[in-house]
Amino acid sequence: MITSTSFRLLRTTLSLFAVITCGSAMAQASDSLFIRRVADEILLRSSAYENLRVLTKQIGPRLAGSSGMVKAEQWGAVAMQRAGADRTWMQQCMVPHWVRGGQDQARALANGKSTALDVVALGNSIGTGKTELLAPVIEVRSFEELRQREQEVKGKIVFFNYPFNATLVRTFQAYSDANKFRGQGPSQAARYGAVGVVVRSMSHSTDNHPHTGSTRYDSLYNKIPAVAIGLQDADRLSGWIAQGTAQRPVQVGLRTHGYFLPDTIGHNIIGELKGSEFPNEIITVGGHLDSWDNCEGAHDDGAGCVQTIEILRAFKAVGYVPKRTIRFVLFANEENGLRGGTQYAEEAKQKGEKHVFALESDAGGFTPRAFGFTVSDAQFQKIMQWQPLIAPYGCSEFSRGGGGADIGPLNRLFNTPVAGLQPDSQRYFDYHHARTDVFEAVNKRELELGAVNMAALIYLIDRYGL
Amino acid sequence: MITSTSFRLLRTTLSLFAVITCGSAMAQASDSLFIRRVADEILLRSSAYENLRVLTKQIGPRLAGSSGMVKAEQWGAVAMQRAGADRTWMQQCMVPHWVRGGQDQARALANGKSTALDVVALGNSIGTGKTELLAPVIEVRSFEELRQREQEVKGKIVFFNYPFNATLVRTFQAYSDANKFRGQGPSQAARYGAVGVVVRSMSHSTDNHPHTGSTRYDSLYNKIPAVAIGLQDADRLSGWIAQGTAQRPVQVGLRTHGYFLPDTIGHNIIGELKGSEFPNEIITVGGHLDSWDNCEGAHDDGAGCVQTIEILRAFKAVGYVPKRTIRFVLFANEENGLRGGTQYAEEAKQKGEKHVFALESDAGGFTPRAFGFTVSDAQFQKIMQWQPLIAPYGCSEFSRGGGGADIGPLNRLFNTPVAGLQPDSQRYFDYHHARTDVFEAVNKRELELGAVNMAALIYLIDRYGL
Repeated sequence: MITSTSFRLLRTTLSLFAVITCGSAMAQASDSLFIRRVADEILLRSSAYENLRVLTKQIGPRLAGSSGMVKAEQWGAVAMQRAGADRTWMQQCMVPHWVRGGQDQARALANGKSTALDVVALGNSIGTGKTELLAPVIEVRSFEELRQREQEVKGKIVFFNYPFNATLVRTFQAYSDANKFRGQGPSQAARYGAVGVVVRSMSHSTDNHPHTGSTRYDSLYNKIPAVAIGLQDADRLSGWIAQGTAQRPVQVGLRTHGYFLPDTIGHNIIGELKGSEFPNEIITVGGHLDSWDNCEGAHDDGAGCVQTIEILRAFKAVGYVPKRTIRFVLFANEENGLRGGTQYAEEAKQKGEKHVFALESDAGGFTPRAFGFTVSDAQFQKIMQWQPLIAPYGCSEFSRGGGGADIGPLNRLFNTPVAGLQPDSQRYFDYHHARTDVFEAVNKRELELGAVNMAALIYLIDRYGL
Repeated sequence: MITSTSFRLLRTTLSLFAVITCGSAMAQASDSLFIRRVADEILLRSSAYENLRVLTKQIGPRLAGSSGMVKAEQWGAVAMQRAGADRTWMQQCMVPHWVRGGQDQARALANGKSTALDVVALGNSIGTGKTELLAPVIEVRSFEELRQREQEVKGKIVFFNYPFNATLVRTFQAYSDANKFRGQGPSQAARYGAVGVVVRSMSHSTDNHPHTGSTRYDSLYNKIPAVAIGLQDADRLSGWIAQGTAQRPVQVGLRTHGYFLPDTIGHNIIGELKGSEFPNEIITVGGHLDSWDNCEGAHDDGAGCVQTIEILRAFKAVGYVPKRTIRFVLFANEENGLRGGTQYAEEAKQKGEKHVFALESDAGGFTPRAFGFTVSDAQFQKIMQWQPLIAPYGCSEFSRGGGGADIGPLNRLFNTPVAGLQPDSQRYFDYHHARTDVFEAVNKRELELGAVNMAALIYLIDRYGL
């Protein structure tokens, strides 16, 4: 039997319970509604696709130090202002200035016949000089094989023909697996006296376009010219080598022209929305503005740049006033130096800034599937509660590990929790660092949905902290 | 203190426990290994992409009744045999034979100027006859608006300008929302005396290619010509109409040539692997072989066909002997009649076959994300246990609801549990029923991964039943 008093007590308790659970449900419901509003704003009125058209078609390639870089920086600053930043500035940093210097050329000499090969010099690589570098070629599939055959290497061009592993479903794993040959291959080959290097492109595309990317010379060894070769030509070259003899070895001729000019001035482009409650807590979201010189850099990383600007535009368009300060950053020189990301973190340290979270989009403008987080266990638990709010827009998988090259220094200097947008990866290495990375390869809705998912995550972190 | 006897008992109990738990763990581990093997087989040695090239580039369009249909059927039967079917046969059915009959043309007359519009006649629609159908145009955005303005409709061409809803993240929802105007629009307009219909294409592509698809005339009303119009031209036409006056209304001129020939003979192409333990339990996996006449039908549904054949090839290549009978089916006439799927189910009923599961791929050859299941609660619970085995290959979401048009009759006649592969949907309606649905729009790996996920599901259902 319930007494009047105990009934009142029960009623009070129940009401309190209702207030608490309703409060929580209301928070989730209002979050869900806000994210829906931002999503609708982006899906109906996005500027991202048109911004990408301008960045890729009117500005085009924008390698650090190039005139394209300067134009892109000016464009970026104006775009940030137009999108509604409270404040926009250009953060200076010195950037390397590698120049391709001319048209890369290669040919194979096999069975008395010369055949042109589609190649692109590796970024940061030196040129062959005015005359063709012509030498017998030796094909290897691993550094171990190179070591085992070191006696054969002297005076030759080493052809690293390591295939991109098609059985790895996530293509970034295949990239991690293969890209040591581009990064370390030239110096590893030079160590045993090689005079040049040809690297199989890191891709499983069905075409023959070669894929560049930076190489790193080890100061212990000679710097030698190095190119990437298209997949079809790689298979062709491998076939000729298999048929070659010691008497009539297959030769490869290279003409490349790369060199460095002195470091020059580049900039991170930063737009800011000032926090209303915790202005000293900074959330960073960004992509990198530079691209390789042989493409429009539409997926890498025009997409990340215009998504970043779009989140700012959409937040302003729906009248969102953030609690924390949100910085929208187009980083300089990710491709061959990481000077922008490094400068951003170092200046933050000098100024004693408090960086509470950073998010990067630098895996292409493809359909969003996941976020990867480099955060503590407690932070990940908190983040996982938001998954149902974001999953309907595409990022249904939240996993540990991930971030972005440009926000890596923030994580290392401050232990700032970081995350990376992980769009579907199947097509990324078809275009990555190849002449096919153009505006037409980006789908408008996929690009926009990436921005939607990022905006939702940034909103939740701004609202609830980490 | 443990006695020798009780120790032996304990040891026996522990061993038994180990056998049981290990047995279960082993089953999962061996399933995981088998799926990995099939995945590697497909990702390294697939014929799917090359089969798709032949089907789209050498055969091309293959609408029911066309010569392309006949060629595709012959190709399909040979492909099934080559892939290793125990038995291949062609299951006959009568199919409708609609013919476009010529080049569809349209123009707008506005402000005294004639402008060509990019249109495609709707499938099953009648032609305008030899002379141009020229009439004032009335634009509506809903059937309700059509009813409200019924007095204005007589003698006019009705322009259904209902936009594809960009805020629906899953594009098939936007399609469900919009396609009533293509299906019912012509008869709804004819009801009020309209003489022709222009329908905004069901797409949110950024181009101007019009998208066809079947319309259904209601026998109560006159049959009137009907076309779909490209999105850019739809917006242009809408702009002119907004500027038009009652005195000088915008007119639209149509020339279309569609007509029906008598029904003709088509076939489902069926390859079979006989079950070793339960040969009478039949699992069906398929796509549809027909396509619209204005495109190569690469995504719709060449992809589903070559994935189906690929699963057969891969099972044979790894030496898999199924417990149940697996039928690999290329269905006839999905696009404008569903006669193939209907015949398949009806013949199964006549023969008293037991159909335990059916899976269809008819949502494009894009990167796999999900399976949708029309199954009982108990079946879904069982299926959900397999999610961790399939998720690493892309289909990380299993949801209720889904299947495919061609396997719908099986579900309706037998209550057969059915499922549909749900690849990422963002790009699908860019190509669907438009001249852009060509081989080049399909990505090799995405196509192959679809086959991998389907193979994994078919394997698990074969092994454990439902």
